[in-house]
Amino acid sequence: MVQPATPFLRIDLTRLRANVRGMADHATSARVALRPHVKTHKCIEIGRLQVGAGAVGITVATIGEAETFAGHGFDDLFIAYPLWVRRPSARRLEDLAAGARVAIGVDSIEGLAQASRLLGASDIEVMIEVDSGQHRSGVRPEEAGAVADTARRTGLKVRGAFTFPGHSYAPGAGRAAAAAQESAALARAATSLREVGVEPEVLSGGSTPSIADTDLGVVTEIRPGVYCLGDAQQWELGVMEPAHIALTCRSTVVSHAGGRVVLDAGSKILGADRAPYSTGHGRLLDFPDARIVMLAEHHAVVDLGGDVDLPPLGSQVEVVPNHVCTAVNLVDTLYADEAGAVRAWPVAARGRNS
Amino acid sequence: MVQPATPFLRIDLTRLRANVRGMADHATSARVALRPHVKTHKCIEIGRLQVGAGAVGITVATIGEAETFAGHGFDDLFIAYPLWVRRPSARRLEDLAAGARVAIGVDSIEGLAQASRLLGASDIEVMIEVDSGQHRSGVRPEEAGAVADTARRTGLKVRGAFTFPGHSYAPGAGRAAAAAQESAALARAATSLREVGVEPEVLSGGSTPSIADTDLGVVTEIRPGVYCLGDAQQWELGVMEPAHIALTCRSTVVSHAGGRVVLDAGSKILGADRAPYSTGHGRLLDFPDARIVMLAEHHAVVDLGGDVDLPPLGSQVEVVPNHVCTAVNLVDTLYADEAGAVRAWPVAARGRNS
Repeated sequence: MVQPATPFLRIDLTRLRANVRGMADHATSARVALRPHVKTHKCIEIGRLQVGAGAVGITVATIGEAETFAGHGFDDLFIAYPLWVRRPSARRLEDLAAGARVAIGVDSIEGLAQASRLLGASDIEVMIEVDSGQHRSGVRPEEAGAVADTARRTGLKVRGAFTFPGHSYAPGAGRAAAAAQESAALARAATSLREVGVEPEVLSGGSTPSIADTDLGVVTEIRPGVYCLGDAQQWELGVMEPAHIALTCRSTVVSHAGGRVVLDAGSKILGADRAPYSTGHGRLLDFPDARIVMLAEHHAVVDLGGDVDLPPLGSQVEVVPNHVCTAVNLVDTLYADEAGAVRAWPVAARGRNS
Repeated sequence: MVQPATPFLRIDLTRLRANVRGMADHATSARVALRPHVKTHKCIEIGRLQVGAGAVGITVATIGEAETFAGHGFDDLFIAYPLWVRRPSARRLEDLAAGARVAIGVDSIEGLAQASRLLGASDIEVMIEVDSGQHRSGVRPEEAGAVADTARRTGLKVRGAFTFPGHSYAPGAGRAAAAAQESAALARAATSLREVGVEPEVLSGGSTPSIADTDLGVVTEIRPGVYCLGDAQQWELGVMEPAHIALTCRSTVVSHAGGRVVLDAGSKILGADRAPYSTGHGRLLDFPDARIVMLAEHHAVVDLGGDVDLPPLGSQVEVVPNHVCTAVNLVDTLYADEAGAVRAWPVAARGRNS
């Protein structure tokens, strides 16, 4: 196919396959279930690679993502989010459950009571979210039993507990510390569940930065997302080498204003995510010293760092977005390149926020 | 129509109409042309309101945006971006010019020479971008003549010069200073153009924060974008009162984890933009002391500030995104509400990055 106009998101399919295989092998050797989070790519073709490599099912963030993947034959779906279920969403969940194994997250007695009123007669299972230190959502681990008890009394089956150790997105020793808190929280949640007579079938955790430190003696299921594609955050955290990053934004040098390089990729394709530890608004794959020092909607201003000739006007470079999950959600199509053969993969679940 | 599931982007149509009218009146009274930047909304219906109120045409950032609007009858299009024109994009520009008046930006002799090779026989006009202090793109004002001279020798007509005083996005005295630099730069560019025998027909500037300070004795055309909808940046800069903000993200309280409010709106609908002066990741329209202290893809964690009762689980609040231009680009549909009558407006140019 003809190369699309820049900027566009390009996948190195050889690298993607290797990343998918690597995580699958890691899970297999540790005897844990792998349930990758597909919010990272929202792409049926990548989900199929993951399931083909042995994933037990997929994790999604929204009912809409679940519907998209279910519509393409994915039949084991965990919505890892504390849903507040209303009647229209209850109907959508029941429709999903008619053709797939479905679990949803809850993180409050009220949320579970609400879900039970509307879904109590269904086969939908519940995973109780516990906070392992990120302090985003989730009950305290010792409260998991109280939530589970509500579920049991209303008819919904509790599958187990889950957490997201999102505070693993930190440089240095933060990842190991987050992983230790993750296993402690899930172990405590399991005890709390057993206290009310619920034997957890699944204790689910895992994030790409913490995966090497995850206590696989406690965690029975891992839900990493970013590992398959990689991004500048993983690069800068030291979790992934640039040589393993599988997604880039191919961009054109449109200006040399001020003696710098200005690219046609901006926040409307790279995303505006900038973590506290990020050194800029994205990286250039082939210029490791370069930093994107200014980002507008359609401009990335690059400081190349050191004594480097400016890439000429009209030339193209590969930008690594800071956060791949938000970059992918900005395009309709990913261009998967394997030794020069390019396939257009739809971002099927793009924009499915609800 | 039935209210969509949260999160969704809602427009207060009464406020939008007032904002559109207010800027049109400002331009009329100052006798400058208004050419609003439609990258803010990417929406045909809003563009029609703007042109209906007297805008001379529209500004876009990409050829794709121009194509979308041209396809709905917009016939005066300025692509305010230093395009690097290749053969496929030259064909697209020629197609546009067959049905509309089209101008493109350039900010280098090389870029103009490249455009001239491919577009020299067309009616497409050129606007020379000058840097007025933002240091993003644009030549120095005194260099405008040299670029224009290249155009004249190759057949492309130079319409004038433009700048974006983006450094007006600053608290305090920054806006007036940016506006002063804007008019100085455009005046200097005009002199430079006249030195090579080019009389500028248009000197184009303007940004929403600086518009009240724009020197309308120099600037002949203004290109504000955000003014029609507003966002938390304008609120926090003191440019717009919350009572004039026309776009919000309706969101549901899904969790009270940690005694805080967690909403179902995250960076995949609000955008991750956070300017240095922003006090958080977005604001709540009806809770002026509240701040979004943590933003994930589908979670906004809110600190309500002060002694306020938590809005109950399942209740809905209106979030004001930090930057409306990137929020709009994350959805397919805007829900325009006028006294309870809701219309679904497509974000027709969403994702048109090239």
